[in-house]
Amino acid sequence: MRVLVVGATGLIGRAVVAELAPRHEIIRAGRSSADVALDITSAESIAAAFRSIGTVDAVVSAAGHVKFAPFAEMAAADYEVGLRDKLMGQVNLVLIGRDFIADGGSFTLTTGVLDSDPIRMGTSASMVNGAVNGFVMAAAIEMPRGQRINVVSPGVIAEAMDKLAPFFRGFEPVPAARAALAYAKSVEGAQTGRVYRVV
Amino acid sequence: MRVLVVGATGLIGRAVVAELAPRHEIIRAGRSSADVALDITSAESIAAAFRSIGTVDAVVSAAGHVKFAPFAEMAAADYEVGLRDKLMGQVNLVLIGRDFIADGGSFTLTTGVLDSDPIRMGTSASMVNGAVNGFVMAAAIEMPRGQRINVVSPGVIAEAMDKLAPFFRGFEPVPAARAALAYAKSVEGAQTGRVYRVV
Repeated sequence: MRVLVVGATGLIGRAVVAELAPRHEIIRAGRSSADVALDITSAESIAAAFRSIGTVDAVVSAAGHVKFAPFAEMAAADYEVGLRDKLMGQVNLVLIGRDFIADGGSFTLTTGVLDSDPIRMGTSASMVNGAVNGFVMAAAIEMPRGQRINVVSPGVIAEAMDKLAPFFRGFEPVPAARAALAYAKSVEGAQTGRVYRVV
Repeated sequence: MRVLVVGATGLIGRAVVAELAPRHEIIRAGRSSADVALDITSAESIAAAFRSIGTVDAVVSAAGHVKFAPFAEMAAADYEVGLRDKLMGQVNLVLIGRDFIADGGSFTLTTGVLDSDPIRMGTSASMVNGAVNGFVMAAAIEMPRGQRINVVSPGVIAEAMDKLAPFFRGFEPVPAARAALAYAKSVEGAQTGRVYRVV
């Protein structure tokens, strides 16, 4: 298959590339230093990337940012960061990409454990993860041309614990390579509308 | 208790008022024909309403709209309706209201069954319901002054089935009075961070 991996230079993206590259043609996308430039917060950037690469069989998104801050300091504008980036950025990959990917192709998005196992400063992440999970479950039953859509919801990534440990005490870290298996299941399997929780 | 019910003239709001009124002082809020005017899509309207009514012990939101349309016709702008209204409208009730409600007071928001049991044309509703559920679970662990927050996620309301039945075939309708019990549990109980699924 031809597989577009968005956020290919991140911790999860690199593990997904490592998992899939032995069996598939990988096109790495990112804001910089990748095969194709793609900024998920820009619909124009997404469309330009899809036009430049031609038809792909699968799109994996391991991209998206949200703001982390104490709830007492979060105002409406702070939630907009995550709504524009990790939520609508990933949704726009699907809305635009659905016209470019092959019949029976798949989308695999990324959320995370915080929608159901919250931490301090994580209200925006919890909101956005819940939103993406809900969208994926619903979009799956209306995807065109046999296309599939799933989402991987990993726990805190082990390779990020040097920075994240103080915020995720007691969470069992998930090696990126273990999370990457769920992306392979989504891309190479036949399931749709699933939230793969890797915890 | 003094309880502010937002969306008090809707099907669920009226049932919540009927359930709570025998035991509490109810202030009904809505876009029109209520005790106080409150449009959740306007932060100014929310702040003005809270300033006018003084301290309350509980806020119930049974308000919020999303766009229903086939996924093939949904573009990014169509999702904005639900993000602005049912999601950030209810979140803004909390962000603004947290400074106005009493120590130990509560917020009770509303989502619905579509986050986990999707229907055609419901991708925006599923997205928004998942977002509100995630936000509530996370906000609960950071609420100030002993405040609580829960969300009620009812199935399709029986009294709306004359209009909604074609879209919800096979869903067991939930009488509004039955859904209203979950709001009473949230307001009068001590739980927090809960998604009360009434299906």
